[in-house]
Amino acid sequence: MTKTIEQIAQKAKHVSPTLANLSSAKKNQILLRIGDHLKQNSKKISKANQLDVKAAEEMVKNNTLSLPLLNRLKLNDEKINQLSVYLEEVSKLEDPVGKKQFAMELDTGLELTRLSCPIGVLAVIFESRPEVVIQVSALSLKSGNAVILKGGREASHSNRVLFELIDQVLAEFELSGAVNLIETREDVAALLDQDEHIDLIIPRGSNEFVRYIQDNTKIPVLGHSSGICHIYIDKTYDIDKAIPVTIDAKIDYPSACNAVETLLLHEDAAKLILPQLIGELNDAGIKILACENTLKLSQGSQVKIEPATAEDWKTEYSDLVLSVKIVPSVEAAVNHINQFSSHHTDTIITEDPNAADYFMKRVDSGCVFHNVSTRFSDGYVFGLGAEVGISTNKTHSRGPVGLEGLVIYKYLLSGNGQKRASYSGENAKVFKHKKLPLN
Amino acid sequence: MTKTIEQIAQKAKHVSPTLANLSSAKKNQILLRIGDHLKQNSKKISKANQLDVKAAEEMVKNNTLSLPLLNRLKLNDEKINQLSVYLEEVSKLEDPVGKKQFAMELDTGLELTRLSCPIGVLAVIFESRPEVVIQVSALSLKSGNAVILKGGREASHSNRVLFELIDQVLAEFELSGAVNLIETREDVAALLDQDEHIDLIIPRGSNEFVRYIQDNTKIPVLGHSSGICHIYIDKTYDIDKAIPVTIDAKIDYPSACNAVETLLLHEDAAKLILPQLIGELNDAGIKILACENTLKLSQGSQVKIEPATAEDWKTEYSDLVLSVKIVPSVEAAVNHINQFSSHHTDTIITEDPNAADYFMKRVDSGCVFHNVSTRFSDGYVFGLGAEVGISTNKTHSRGPVGLEGLVIYKYLLSGNGQKRASYSGENAKVFKHKKLPLN
Repeated sequence: MTKTIEQIAQKAKHVSPTLANLSSAKKNQILLRIGDHLKQNSKKISKANQLDVKAAEEMVKNNTLSLPLLNRLKLNDEKINQLSVYLEEVSKLEDPVGKKQFAMELDTGLELTRLSCPIGVLAVIFESRPEVVIQVSALSLKSGNAVILKGGREASHSNRVLFELIDQVLAEFELSGAVNLIETREDVAALLDQDEHIDLIIPRGSNEFVRYIQDNTKIPVLGHSSGICHIYIDKTYDIDKAIPVTIDAKIDYPSACNAVETLLLHEDAAKLILPQLIGELNDAGIKILACENTLKLSQGSQVKIEPATAEDWKTEYSDLVLSVKIVPSVEAAVNHINQFSSHHTDTIITEDPNAADYFMKRVDSGCVFHNVSTRFSDGYVFGLGAEVGISTNKTHSRGPVGLEGLVIYKYLLSGNGQKRASYSGENAKVFKHKKLPLN
Repeated sequence: MTKTIEQIAQKAKHVSPTLANLSSAKKNQILLRIGDHLKQNSKKISKANQLDVKAAEEMVKNNTLSLPLLNRLKLNDEKINQLSVYLEEVSKLEDPVGKKQFAMELDTGLELTRLSCPIGVLAVIFESRPEVVIQVSALSLKSGNAVILKGGREASHSNRVLFELIDQVLAEFELSGAVNLIETREDVAALLDQDEHIDLIIPRGSNEFVRYIQDNTKIPVLGHSSGICHIYIDKTYDIDKAIPVTIDAKIDYPSACNAVETLLLHEDAAKLILPQLIGELNDAGIKILACENTLKLSQGSQVKIEPATAEDWKTEYSDLVLSVKIVPSVEAAVNHINQFSSHHTDTIITEDPNAADYFMKRVDSGCVFHNVSTRFSDGYVFGLGAEVGISTNKTHSRGPVGLEGLVIYKYLLSGNGQKRASYSGENAKVFKHKKLPLN
């Protein structure tokens, strides 16, 4: 009998206190065991993956799937080996659970401690790449969380076999229910109602998909629905930084959420830099949509430039397209960014430390950069060890999120029979509030 | 012309980058100035408060308002002085903004820093006590956040005069829009739609009210809709802790969210402790609603005990009522709590360190206590300096929340023209990832 989504969520919740209290050694042992199990079953994985790949090849022929998506779907022996290495790497990361964050003697014999602990039950919804089943399971287990996974339809056979291999290892450790797989869109809709059992949803996918999740659940959502990143070239710029950084931020991976979408130019900079900038952007294959002032300043240019509309300042192209706007000052640049940015990553190019300081202090985004490509906004690049996702939220976690984003804390208070009433009214006892060392 | 809620929220958002970058000295100066301004205008405050009090006295006569609510409404000179002292205390708290949380050299000339920063724009909705206008404004300003306040209707004259006094001081510092007051229920409904401009809502009030807010907005909500707290008396208990702690947790402040609602008894403990326990609870004026086993064990008792229904395990009485249930083990107690607790505060009474350890590790609540009353769950008691509220969320902030709960962080990266492409492909540069000291 198939379990309902509610039963799956309940079971995940039920196993979560056990997961929360596994030792680091035990968690790492499980991760390494999964890695071995994957390698031992690489043929089985390949076989299942072949079914997905064949179906996808048909879809490519019918133009219902793109070639890059087909390639992302493929799991060969090398990729399976890489997954084993990934599991080993995660096993070596610092355990985020059980860290003492705060300790205070409230009174003699009354000690308060705050310890990091897992969030509880996560739900992670992602698209085609089947490796994500392993990656997300590893991060969830390492942080002591139970997880419910929903992968892309195109990878369903691969996802299922990877899940089954994980589940076999978890059963050996009496942890069935710690990782769960659901498979249909109806299941996702049912999942969104499980706010009693699921503590955090992490959607990975298109903007529309993430927005759909955000709009249809009371469960907190970690993620970003869009990546409208900016580069602002200030009055005092170094051309050898300005142009290469802008081109890198657009062409290195145009469909990434940390690719630049809008270039803002100080009017003084625009007068000097525009001809060369436009030429080099054009040479790099970037289509330009420009504001009226940019169009005026570019009259006579050999490069074809199209006018931008009001919509362009709110658009994530995810393609080799860049909107360009001239602004009168760094203040105007910051105001434009705070109005139109998705609060993901924004960069200033300037040699003026005051302008840099103003920009970094006042731009309200998770990542604010100076003289460096927006593409550096990434958990691995930031040295966080592993990336859970990128968040544009203003609470809990912001910017690239590492394992730390999968934990919360609890307060533990130990006493010897104290009553609250003893600390109020006449002859009230007084709290000591003596901070204790964390080690 | 009255401003629309959207205009108020936009203005608050607009001033927030300025607030975010005020020095600690400036923020403290503003707080102290508000304190002085309150004292200088105590007559004006009293006069406005008199209007509210008179209207409320009429309502008490008509039985449309309770006497305790009337008393909470009153603002006399002593209370106004206390508010000045409160502002002084908040000025002395550590500034939560601008703390370096993480620093890493990604590569030579490429340095990453993570700094704490304000969340942005808060909305705080509360009931009758007018002091809250001052308290919440102080905490918001200290943490560099703009705030939109909505107080209780009964205190509307008092709230308005207090807001106006704050607004006068803010205007002196060119910070108009940092604190805002809205006044009607329709305004609250409009506020809930401002997810583009408002970053966090903190509702304080009845369970129904908090649930209404949670159910009707996409803005993150910090708070708790109910406080169903438990005490579990284990097999190995000390009667001189068990009974006084239980009585304190119920009678010290029965309508508080950290008052106990359900008492769980290990069956071995129940056999020994029940007659005395029931007698003392009864003497303290506590009505008992008991499970079947408790009723059986209490046959012949002089105290009248009523049977509990399934609803009782989910009920916050906020009154001198306690539900009592016998459980076979500490495991069963933890399971009951994880199922029925509002994850606020739960206590074990035991002399067995293993049972205490098991309970504290596995109960999934913000505050888990050993041998101490649930009533200790409070920001001031915990030494957090000031309490913003109590959260039963699993993300961002949990348990009593201090100023720390009103900040998030941003990543700042400074480079000298680095491109992401240089760190991939052939001849890729390698990241150093060298942690830097935080001071």
